[in-house]
Amino acid sequence: MSHKVAVILSGSGVFDGSEIHEAVMALLALSKAGAEVECFAPNVDQMHVINHITQDVMQETRNVLVESARITRGKVTDLASYNPANFDALLMPGGFGAAKNLCTFAVDGADCSVNSDVAKAITATKDAGNVIGAMCIAPILLAKLLPGVRITLGDEGDASKAAEAMGATHQVSSHDIVVDDSQNVVTTPAYMLDATIADIESDATALVTKVLAMCEN
Amino acid sequence: MSHKVAVILSGSGVFDGSEIHEAVMALLALSKAGAEVECFAPNVDQMHVINHITQDVMQETRNVLVESARITRGKVTDLASYNPANFDALLMPGGFGAAKNLCTFAVDGADCSVNSDVAKAITATKDAGNVIGAMCIAPILLAKLLPGVRITLGDEGDASKAAEAMGATHQVSSHDIVVDDSQNVVTTPAYMLDATIADIESDATALVTKVLAMCEN
Repeated sequence: MSHKVAVILSGSGVFDGSEIHEAVMALLALSKAGAEVECFAPNVDQMHVINHITQDVMQETRNVLVESARITRGKVTDLASYNPANFDALLMPGGFGAAKNLCTFAVDGADCSVNSDVAKAITATKDAGNVIGAMCIAPILLAKLLPGVRITLGDEGDASKAAEAMGATHQVSSHDIVVDDSQNVVTTPAYMLDATIADIESDATALVTKVLAMCEN
Repeated sequence: MSHKVAVILSGSGVFDGSEIHEAVMALLALSKAGAEVECFAPNVDQMHVINHITQDVMQETRNVLVESARITRGKVTDLASYNPANFDALLMPGGFGAAKNLCTFAVDGADCSVNSDVAKAITATKDAGNVIGAMCIAPILLAKLLPGVRITLGDEGDASKAAEAMGATHQVSSHDIVVDDSQNVVTTPAYMLDATIADIESDATALVTKVLAMCEN
């Protein structure tokens, strides 16, 4: 029987939303593994809109749910209606959207607050005993919400120090998955490290393979 | 020696820009094949902005070059500066952006006009003897600009009839590449047909493999 996986997106574009390569490679790996996928995003405005060429802030407003639909060809569900009972696993690609729209980490660091629908989704998934996978900067959400969780954010640096300040255990990783068996969590650095798009496919495939294997337990 | 491939994007999102899965799978296949890639887009406003959930037009303006940078993590060049002498091949993913922003096919059908930078790029590429690859609806640009070219747009329908009205030969294809050896053109239906994201990876890989093989000739 195929596994059901929920994916949380945070917009569409690395500097203010989901990292597109990470999101698409996760969807590709899930498709190849025969998983049933439903994508979700919070129905909130982005923290801001970034011109991806100049990295300047643009004076406009975009909605995280609406922009996430660009990655999914239209099909995306308001995260408020997510119920872990309908899924075996939850997966979160990275991109600054995870640190700007899903929580306030990009601004507040270790003192960040998490969007209430995101917090509810992650906590309920943990409580249901489902598996959670996270890429790139998205593991910072787990550091905030799952006390003592073991994650990777790639190399040591400001992000890993903040994760440890929140009580997580950070494990340095060079494009290898890091598994926390006690909390059913799998993380991978992806674009937290220098990477080609082929590296991201490889990272996403390793993450999805492990997440689906842990769904068997 | 690795081949140099130019990729023309048309925004970021299937309904008003480049189809994201097609663009990313083309970039993945090029990365895995060791090609050197530079992405381009015309510096013009999109025909319109579509809410990808409701498919309604949104009352705002987005620039094709700026939005394309979301797919490339920032690196994209104004198509006006494209010179085929620096490349071996030119590749165009699909999405409605190809029919709305690169030309006016979505509105004008067989009577469409092509953006002047796009027309110059394709004609100069052909004149240089370089290979051209196009996915999904993007082959319609070749139908307009390369007299008598053989392409596929998947099944027979309004698009294939328009291509034939423009003088192209349309070949029905079910996720197979179609090759025009005399004009150095390779096309594939991708999301012109029902497809999973894994199908799109397979289509993009076949297209890129053939394009790079033809660069050897």
